[in-house]
This record gives sequence, structure tokens and C-alpha cells, in this order.
Amino acid sequence: MNQVHRFSLTVEFGDCDPAQIVWFPNFFRWFDAGSRRYFIACGVPTWQETEASLGIIGTPLVDTKARFVKPASYGDEIAVESTVSEWRGKSFVMSHRIFNAAGELLCECEEVRVFAERVAGDRHRIRAVPAPESIKALCAQR
Amino acid sequence: MNQVHRFSLTVEFGDCDPAQIVWFPNFFRWFDAGSRRYFIACGVPTWQETEASLGIIGTPLVDTKARFVKPASYGDEIAVESTVSEWRGKSFVMSHRIFNAAGELLCECEEVRVFAERVAGDRHRIRAVPAPESIKALCAQR
Amino acid sequence: MNQVHRFSLTVEFGDCDPAQIVWFPNFFRWFDAGSRRYFIACGVPTWQETEASLGIIGTPLVDTKARFVKPASYGDEIAVESTVSEWRGKSFVMSHRIFNAAGELLCECEEVRVFAERVAGDRHRIRAVPAPESIKALCAQR
Amino acid sequence: MNQVHRFSLTVEFGDCDPAQIVWFPNFFRWFDAGSRRYFIACGVPTWQETEASLGIIGTPLVDTKARFVKPASYGDEIAVESTVSEWRGKSFVMSHRIFNAAGELLCECEEVRVFAERVAGDRHRIRAVPAPESIKALCAQR
Repeated sequence: MNQVHRFSLTVEFGDCDPAQIVWFPNFFRWFDAGSRRYFIACGVPTWQETEASLGIIGTPLVDTKARFVKPASYGDEIAVESTVSEWRGKSFVMSHRIFNAAGELLCECEEVRVFAERVAGDRHRIRAVPAPESIKALCAQR
Repeated sequence: MNQVHRFSLTVEFGDCDPAQIVWFPNFFRWFDAGSRRYFIACGVPTWQETEASLGIIGTPLVDTKARFVKPASYGDEIAVESTVSEWRGKSFVMSHRIFNAAGELLCECEEVRVFAERVAGDRHRIRAVPAPESIKALCAQR
Repeated sequence: MNQVHRFSLTVEFGDCDPAQIVWFPNFFRWFDAGSRRYFIACGVPTWQETEASLGIIGTPLVDTKARFVKPASYGDEIAVESTVSEWRGKSFVMSHRIFNAAGELLCECEEVRVFAERVAGDRHRIRAVPAPESIKALCAQR
Repeated sequence: MNQVHRFSLTVEFGDCDPAQIVWFPNFFRWFDAGSRRYFIACGVPTWQETEASLGIIGTPLVDTKARFVKPASYGDEIAVESTVSEWRGKSFVMSHRIFNAAGELLCECEEVRVFAERVAGDRHRIRAVPAPESIKALCAQR
């Protein structure tokens, strides 16, 4: 079991569409923020630092699926809850759930991500590497 | 079998992230644009007009999944190809694929959407209705 | 002199561009959030409520100018400070400044906005109205 | 006198806000796209290429002002027209105007930008350099 972390945000006017509700691509912005913040909250250094120490440049997304249950609108306080729900061979699964202030589930998402490093000699190519044990240990429930 | 429609766009600098590639929530912006443009290309009137004629205010998203195969960067010309791949009882499936100028698949997405109308007496509530036969006919392959 | 209000936010990976710094249109997102949050912080009801009570639907932007002094990048905590710096006849000036955690100015912006109401009989037209005295009173320094 | 270039785009649903019109930070996205596309249309190589040949990494924004005249909504075809209106010592002015399909001005913007190069030995610092004569020549009216 891994740690679970949360952050909160206020939905802004500009996050909403002509139907007056959050335009769904914005939920993916917040899921992505949840992933980055999760590792920071677990004590993993920033990707700039892991690039220097471990060669890891980040966790690109391979696959994602999301389910939208209830809308939100501007002024709403929402919470994004994230965890690593599974370590696989060369990938891992991040699960996110977003709740409103009443604790109701607005949407949930499962992302398959990989830890990536650069391919030597080609600054535009990257490849997946297994999750470093040091990072897995930092994410584990304590 | 339903019609398939495409539109093209140029990836902009601001669509890309510090890894120099398209930040993935932007692909969802383009999938959403693909859905709206699909119905227009099939000859379905705008949602403003269908609201007046049929009560249909649009096609909110219920569920989505996407797979990311290859990145794109700014200056790239990409094409978004969209179709209704399945009509279900009260929902339907839109499938999108995005290709680069070399014809390589960058990502693909399946969206479950519903046609929605307002709930009388409450301007903030909507409900799913079956796809109107007139809209299904417009989308069919000719 | 009017009240000054602040809110904080964390710059996210997706707010940054291939130059690794905040892509400037995002600062306008935050200036706009500052304007909406300012009136809320002063005790002005939401625009949904003022539409019912005063006919005011919001404060559309007429003119804006901004100066960018220092960049920010992801992970940075920044603060957006907003005030109404001038009431004019049918418009008013909102001034925003954004600071980093070290208190350094990142950018500043002056927006000319108007209070707007709908034109009766045409749901797509709006017109500027003088700032209601009740709203000016709420914004005044206490 | 310098060349003037235009590109067109369709306003999407997600570019619009709860007031049903384009949310103004999106106009700054399009002004920024206009600046990058302008140099490409004049025959200036991409910034990736000028970084290798001239050390120029792009044209960061220093100052901007915009005036909003008329709104746009989704489905509208709009055109962004851009030019370099002035070369200064270490900066230059880009002017943009956005029109709807009827040729009406929606908004206009003046940006002060600089050509920038990296500061040797510090990959996070950049400095302004005078506009290269080769680039000025490419932009001149022919």
C-alpha cells in the first residue's frame, strides 16, 4: 500500500465552459498536477534533481481513462486525491479521485505512466525504465 | 457505419510543456473539438439550434480513455479523425485518432457521450436522452 | 483607497512552456482569477447572485496591459495581489501584481473593466453600467 | 515596412467561458501563435535552428497591451494578422489584430519582445540581443 496525498484548488471562471461547468480537459490538468505533487509530497526530489542523480526526467503518460460523475462550477473548492495504486514491471498506475467540498466524487482517473530517462546521444528520445527502488520506498505507506 | 471526419491543426509553442512535447491535456482539447466538429461536418445544426428545435443542448462526456503512442511538438501539423463508432441506448461512443503529417498515429481515444437536454424548471440540471433518429441519420455513411 | 486582496497558487508543470518557464497567457488566467476573487473577498456576492439582485452579470475586460519582469517555473509558489485602483464613470481599473515566494515582483497588470448587464430582449448583448454604489462601498478600505 | 501575415482558426467550445464568449486569455494564446507563425512565414528558421546558427532561442515577451472591441464565440472563424511594427535597439514591437469572418476587428494587441540568447554557463539565464540583421531583412516588405 502506498501513501495517498491530496491538494485543493478553487475552480475558476475560466475553467468553465459555456455549459457553466468545468470543461473536462481541465480535469486532466488537475490529474497531471496530482501526479507531480504526489511524488513531491512523498519526498521524491524534483525531476530536475532526479535527472542529475538517477537519470529520471519524469513520468510520461502512456494511457489514461477517466469517468465523470458530477460536474463542478466556478467558486467550488475541490480536492484531488492521488496515489500509486500499482507498481508494474516498467510502468505503474496512478489513481486520482476528485471530490467537491461536500465530499462527493466528481470524477476518477487511472493513469498508466512510466519513469523515463533520456537515450544517450539523442536529446529528443526517451525510454522507460523500471521504477527506482528508492522512489518506491519513499511512496510506501509508513 | 458512420461517417468519418477530419480536421487539421498546427501544434503551437504554448501547447508544449517543458519536455518540449505536447502536454497531454491538450490532446483532450482536440478530441473535444473533434466531437463538436464531427456533428457540424455531418450536417447536424449547432447545439444552439438543436436546443431550440429538439431540446438537445450538446453531448456531455461520461467516460473517456486514451492511449498515447508518439509525441508531437510545436510546428507539427496534425490531423484529428473522428467518428461515432457505436450508438447505444442512451449513450454513444465517439472514437478519435490523431496522426502526424507522416501519417503516424500519435494517440487514440474513445469517449462515451450522451445527448443531453435540460430538466424543466431547473436550469442547472440536465439529463441524457436517446440519440435522435434525425441526428443518427445525418451521421450515417452515404 | 480600496482593499487589496491576495491569493496564492503553485505553478504547475503544464503551466510552463518549452523554455521551462510560465507561458505568459497563463499569467492572464491568474489576473482574471484575481479579479473574480477580489470581489468575493470584499464581500460582493457571486455574479450569479448579482444578476438576480442588481442585473450585474460580471466585469468584462475592455483593455489590459502587462509588464513581465521575472519568470517563474513549476513548483514555484506565487501570490497574486489585486485591487481596484480607480473607479471611473462607466469603467474601473483593476491592478494586479504577482510575486514569487521571495517577494520579488514577477509581473504586473492593469485591467480596464466594466460592470455589465444584459440588454433586455437580446440574450447575446450586454452593456456597461456604472459601478453600483453598494459594490464600491464593499471594496473600500475599512 | 515589414511584411504582414495572417492565419485563421476556428473558435472552439472550450475556448469560451460561461458568458458564452471567448475567454480573453485565449486571445493571448493566439497572439503568441501569431508571433511564432509570423517569423516562420517570413522565412526565418525555427528557434531550434536559430539556436544552433545564431544563438537565438526565441522572442520572449516583455510588455503587452491589448484592447478588446467585440466578442467571438465557438464556431466562429477568426483571422490573426501580425507584423513587426517597429525595430528598436534591443527590442521590437509586434502588432496583432484579430478579425471575424465579416472583417470586423475583435481585438488588437501590441507586444514588446526581445530576441534572446542563453547566458553561457547558466542554462536558466537568458539575455536580450539586438535583432539580427538577417532576420530583419527576411521580415522586410518585398
